[in-house]
Amino acid sequence: MTNSTTIITSTHIAEICDEISIDFLMDETIRQLELALQHYDDNNVLVKKRDGYFYTSPVYGMIEWMPVYIQNQGIATKLVGYHPHNPDQKIATIQAVICELDIKTGRLLTLCEGNFATAIRTGAASAIASKYLSYPSSSVLGLIGCGAQAVTQLHAISRVRHIERVLIYDTDKNAQAEFLQKTSVFTRANVIDATLDEIEKESDIICTATSVSVGGGPVFEGYKTRRHVHVNGVGADFKGKFEIPHHLLEQSYVCPDFLPQALEEGECQQLVQDQIGDSLDIVVKSPNDYKRYQNGRTVFDSTGFALEDYVIMKIIKDLAKKFEKGLQVKLDDNFDLPKDPYYFLQRYKKVVI
Amino acid sequence: MTNSTTIITSTHIAEICDEISIDFLMDETIRQLELALQHYDDNNVLVKKRDGYFYTSPVYGMIEWMPVYIQNQGIATKLVGYHPHNPDQKIATIQAVICELDIKTGRLLTLCEGNFATAIRTGAASAIASKYLSYPSSSVLGLIGCGAQAVTQLHAISRVRHIERVLIYDTDKNAQAEFLQKTSVFTRANVIDATLDEIEKESDIICTATSVSVGGGPVFEGYKTRRHVHVNGVGADFKGKFEIPHHLLEQSYVCPDFLPQALEEGECQQLVQDQIGDSLDIVVKSPNDYKRYQNGRTVFDSTGFALEDYVIMKIIKDLAKKFEKGLQVKLDDNFDLPKDPYYFLQRYKKVVI
Repeated sequence: MTNSTTIITSTHIAEICDEISIDFLMDETIRQLELALQHYDDNNVLVKKRDGYFYTSPVYGMIEWMPVYIQNQGIATKLVGYHPHNPDQKIATIQAVICELDIKTGRLLTLCEGNFATAIRTGAASAIASKYLSYPSSSVLGLIGCGAQAVTQLHAISRVRHIERVLIYDTDKNAQAEFLQKTSVFTRANVIDATLDEIEKESDIICTATSVSVGGGPVFEGYKTRRHVHVNGVGADFKGKFEIPHHLLEQSYVCPDFLPQALEEGECQQLVQDQIGDSLDIVVKSPNDYKRYQNGRTVFDSTGFALEDYVIMKIIKDLAKKFEKGLQVKLDDNFDLPKDPYYFLQRYKKVVI
Repeated sequence: MTNSTTIITSTHIAEICDEISIDFLMDETIRQLELALQHYDDNNVLVKKRDGYFYTSPVYGMIEWMPVYIQNQGIATKLVGYHPHNPDQKIATIQAVICELDIKTGRLLTLCEGNFATAIRTGAASAIASKYLSYPSSSVLGLIGCGAQAVTQLHAISRVRHIERVLIYDTDKNAQAEFLQKTSVFTRANVIDATLDEIEKESDIICTATSVSVGGGPVFEGYKTRRHVHVNGVGADFKGKFEIPHHLLEQSYVCPDFLPQALEEGECQQLVQDQIGDSLDIVVKSPNDYKRYQNGRTVFDSTGFALEDYVIMKIIKDLAKKFEKGLQVKLDDNFDLPKDPYYFLQRYKKVVI
């Protein structure tokens, strides 16, 4: 429908996944995000550091916007909330919508449910980092934090490394037990409850995705990790919030997703600039230059990059079009009299003054 | 519906206006905006200067976001585009949506069509400024620029001053002719084609609302204005874009809507800080202190204040609720398993890996 906005809900996304399989969606997201990173050039793709509001009343929470502009292509902004007490009310911690705007007219083209999209693209980013920086025969994955993001970390990394065993840990033992139950749907790996100590000692790849409080990190000690361990640090996304021990960062090649943001909100807060390696897009552009790091300790500092949101939004939008899913809504139906905001008065009797 | 998002389109707004009359809506917006300005306190209401992307390809345009946080109440952000060539395609220059987010959970509560809302609240802001700063017996209104914003400038100002004659001018003579036709719906004043010279000499209040290009201003000469003229400068909202002659600003008491933004994007760009008067909220808080300016030249520098968007969104939202208008959409229907983004896989057969 011309001049309409496409609204894509989780129900539409479920119907799309039913057509294509969740593996296809994850593979496609990894592939497209890799392509986008290969072509990323900060002259053509303008990502703004996210900005937002943080508050402690009426609840502890944060609402942010993450805008990205792709030259001659489009603008998207994710509106995203982080409210760690949401699960008590059966609502996901991260609540997001992705808005796509038409650079030709400024119209809202797409409103895409973003909770699922965020989980998928965060998984895909870790998969790409793991593909290029982790030990090639990695088979043991440790998950610290068993919330929504851990699900897609496991799924995504399973698509690029042959994961046989998954060691899981959460301070919330219910979350840990639930995770054990639900993973059978999307992994054939052996998922096992573990201690932090076991995760450190045995994992080839570790993902941290916790709601640790500001000043509460790190979430593991890090003295016993394998010499080739790769860590995807997913949870650090706020000033003062981090998950990885400082000494482990110092021993590792640290690759941020988006440096200006990582320095303010990511694990990179703990480092000075010359302790930080190249960003993920640089690694993706010349993967051979980074192979040597696969045998040592590496860290992917994933703060969440607006380009990732654009990529997943575009994939979901294109699939919605292909399978004729999504709701078409005319937000503004005034296309005859663009200079008259009161055009509709004519249609009604009572409004005449 | 619990956990749903209310989507309010122009059709819903038209239906609401049919219930209440457009005069009621304008009066209510003026009243509520005045109240919000009276209570405005930058400790409790955090308005961020708008930020965005400006580009010249594929068309000349700009997309911005305008966020506001009201302590313990809510967060809204307007996504707004300015594309002056839109009317060639029968699309309004300003395209906007207002997103309201729940500060308790981060969920998108409301998506409100913003083209009409922007026009209404911009009119209401000028009405408030005119109420406190214009000559009390003002009866001649001059409109420079006859686009969408001029419609609500005329309507809003007619609610606070007894306007008998309206002198209109646009460089686009079609726009001017159309304006003459359509105003009969919302004003009883005598609307007359005029030259810029006539507007300057005869108007008690002038509104400038043009799409003048960067560097193209001012839009009138300003040497012949009445000694008590009040000017609402509506169009300046971009670095280098302004409408009012520098010498007229220097002779006038200049009241910005939101100083930090006005200094960067408004008429205040042309001034240094000690040439600028108090902001509109200060005027509204102690109107008696500003009565003495009503007999002299005054300027309201209206760049567009995010608090205005919050007020109009809230009014429309409450009316939509009252009259049961608006579309209820469940963006995310996962309220059982907040920690499982793949919860829906269970519902479908084919997605099982």
